[in-house]
Amino acid sequence: MSLHQPTTPEAGAAVKAADRAHVFHSWSAQGLIDPLAVAGARGSYFWDYDGNRYLDFSSQLVNTNIGHQHPKVVAAVQEQAGRLCTIAPGFAVDVRSEAARLIAERTPGDLDKIFFTNGGAEAVENAVRMARLHTGRPKVLSAYRSYHGATAAAINLTGDPRRWPSDSGAAGVVHFWAPFLYRSPFHAEDEQQECERALQHLHDTIVFEGPRTIAAIVLETVPGTAGIMVPPPGYLAGVRELCDRYGIVFVLDEVMAGFGRTGRWFAADHFGVTPDLLTFAKGVNSGYVPLGGVAISAEIAATFDERPYPGGLTYSGHPLACASAVATINAMAEEGIVENAAHIGETVLGPGLRELAERHPSVGEVRGLGVFWAVELVRDRATREPLVPYNAAGEDNAPMAAFAAACRRAGLWPFVNMNRTHVVPPCTVTEAEAKEGLAALDEALGVADAHTV
Amino acid sequence: MSLHQPTTPEAGAAVKAADRAHVFHSWSAQGLIDPLAVAGARGSYFWDYDGNRYLDFSSQLVNTNIGHQHPKVVAAVQEQAGRLCTIAPGFAVDVRSEAARLIAERTPGDLDKIFFTNGGAEAVENAVRMARLHTGRPKVLSAYRSYHGATAAAINLTGDPRRWPSDSGAAGVVHFWAPFLYRSPFHAEDEQQECERALQHLHDTIVFEGPRTIAAIVLETVPGTAGIMVPPPGYLAGVRELCDRYGIVFVLDEVMAGFGRTGRWFAADHFGVTPDLLTFAKGVNSGYVPLGGVAISAEIAATFDERPYPGGLTYSGHPLACASAVATINAMAEEGIVENAAHIGETVLGPGLRELAERHPSVGEVRGLGVFWAVELVRDRATREPLVPYNAAGEDNAPMAAFAAACRRAGLWPFVNMNRTHVVPPCTVTEAEAKEGLAALDEALGVADAHTV
Repeated sequence: MSLHQPTTPEAGAAVKAADRAHVFHSWSAQGLIDPLAVAGARGSYFWDYDGNRYLDFSSQLVNTNIGHQHPKVVAAVQEQAGRLCTIAPGFAVDVRSEAARLIAERTPGDLDKIFFTNGGAEAVENAVRMARLHTGRPKVLSAYRSYHGATAAAINLTGDPRRWPSDSGAAGVVHFWAPFLYRSPFHAEDEQQECERALQHLHDTIVFEGPRTIAAIVLETVPGTAGIMVPPPGYLAGVRELCDRYGIVFVLDEVMAGFGRTGRWFAADHFGVTPDLLTFAKGVNSGYVPLGGVAISAEIAATFDERPYPGGLTYSGHPLACASAVATINAMAEEGIVENAAHIGETVLGPGLRELAERHPSVGEVRGLGVFWAVELVRDRATREPLVPYNAAGEDNAPMAAFAAACRRAGLWPFVNMNRTHVVPPCTVTEAEAKEGLAALDEALGVADAHTV
Repeated sequence: MSLHQPTTPEAGAAVKAADRAHVFHSWSAQGLIDPLAVAGARGSYFWDYDGNRYLDFSSQLVNTNIGHQHPKVVAAVQEQAGRLCTIAPGFAVDVRSEAARLIAERTPGDLDKIFFTNGGAEAVENAVRMARLHTGRPKVLSAYRSYHGATAAAINLTGDPRRWPSDSGAAGVVHFWAPFLYRSPFHAEDEQQECERALQHLHDTIVFEGPRTIAAIVLETVPGTAGIMVPPPGYLAGVRELCDRYGIVFVLDEVMAGFGRTGRWFAADHFGVTPDLLTFAKGVNSGYVPLGGVAISAEIAATFDERPYPGGLTYSGHPLACASAVATINAMAEEGIVENAAHIGETVLGPGLRELAERHPSVGEVRGLGVFWAVELVRDRATREPLVPYNAAGEDNAPMAAFAAACRRAGLWPFVNMNRTHVVPPCTVTEAEAKEGLAALDEALGVADAHTV
């Protein structure tokens, strides 16, 4: 196969054939997949070799917050490539310093030291290591309905079925239930009750696990792939208070929710809460170059002032990745991209999804913020029975597969997980694009409706 | 601080000040470090803001096999940035397909499916996961004197002190002793005896741990940071035979040794051994963009034909990273860079280091292959007492710190670990550069000699 061929069906077939011969794909049965060959992408769209263009309502894996091929970020990557692609983590480098400064300026409170990793899983791994060493305690509490990455520590914290095959029964990981009113673990009837009961549950779990054994509580500020459950007012402040009371490190995972996704730089900004550690990746540079990291409070950073921090990686603070983060953050600020995400959420996606919910019996609930929305599909609105069972595969998952296929036929690339579709376009999405996407969803929801009781 | 300033001492001071304000460094006591501000790099050299240029005998963290800023790789990164920076792992993409093909063509035997990660640690994490799921067994055996990365599974396999602070007493990790004649764990007197006894030790460890409980044996083909101990003839073939006998997956970690470092594409090529899984990173694209991966045998890949592989990451098969790998591999092939590494090792570094060993009483042994050499520094050649104790810090480590400082004064940037310096320049290093480096080492070894008995 030669590279850079014209965008023809034949070229696409060659790309796919080479893929099937040699590429082993994430989270897949290798013999059962049929990957779409992608020829190009720009802004909110990408396209294949057969003349099909898709509106990207998934932002790939919810990472292209700035859209595809943003010219300022592309130019910055190209310029930095010509200056200095890589240098070891031990040195000081202009773009690494500047990326850290721009991130630290935006993270809440005193989270002013930045440890860079290659992605979100490694960020979570290092946050947990910092918390354990800072407290000298072994246990970590995390939530069911969560995703924190697929390396050993991160996948053990994760609260979705992807944990199961790799779960080592890791020493000291305890899962608890976070608030989710629509499927309340606490039989609550309103948000305030859900919040109070969720905090009581967490408090009791801490007390029965032993407060002095718990290093950290790790939460996604707004859980992402697990369902975009915006926490009720007061919940995160309540967790902060419990952490303070018991000397527990509060880790907020903003790998998916951070950098504009919720219409603020960080989701924590909605709740006025400052964690002790904040993990990020994805939106920090829209994934143009692999990058993630941990923002660290002054108190935890001080733990490692004279005692070496025992963690690292060859590409920590990678110059090309940092240059793309600098350009991304500056472009997002200059162009009001975070504000755009908030505006689109308030004026188009929120109202539009609620309107779809009224008309489509398959929609049990819509919820979200900014460009971060979940549409919960159900067989029965009254019982809230999901359109497909938890962790369904094959025939059991057919209604969701049909819904996703209908989206793609309508020119929309959806994000689908369990019985939900997430509406997670780039933060740069325009009103017209958002409306185009809602129209496609309207069509596809007709297919889901056919599977309701 | 504004970026892209002129290369002046003032600009360097500003870069360093911003670094100290916001960058949290790998493996470091943050309050005790004084990172050099690097202004640029090319080929085998990099330089600071004060007019000092260093011959890079470390290849950063032994990753810039193709040297700094190779024009073909820089051009490929720039071109791909303009085409498509990122796309989700589920799609087929030209550069991802092509990178996988070029790697699969070079890996030993039937290791023809490539799972891409962001770096070496994640590669090891996924290799272990594959081995456990393929065999249905829990335990993994790895060697003392090894390094496999810093995420939870990888650091638990590691056999150096960096494991200690993060060791969770991970279920099922067992460390054994690999051959190292100079400090023989088996009281052997020659290579053949060391090999036989090391295989006997591994055999006995397998038998006493329970063969049917062991998923994998993970070894660096030639251990890297732990000391570049080239295994004796027959050892790796013997491990292969033990793995076959007991149904154990053989994982070779070539994150550091792979892609030309030893003067062959893979270090396994020296020994005629094909593992079941081979991990790589670093040299695959010289770290110009973060990239790593696992090359997978047909038999293990088939395990995941109909059963989903439960692992993944947002940036698996990242287009920009894959494009840089394609350009790197093609440039290495076109320019004979692997052959150059072999040639420099045989004609300059090997003879040159042996000559230094004859003249400097602080040199206990030199050993290596290609551009992958260790110089073992000792207080006493007769007793082989290391120049500094294992895992020395502060005053205890003063002789090695003085040696490293002397290298830098002589314009050489050394790789130093414990009582060793590793001579690991880029695979593109010229004869003249290699000789320049040997002359600087000659000077610095005078400082080490002063600490001998």
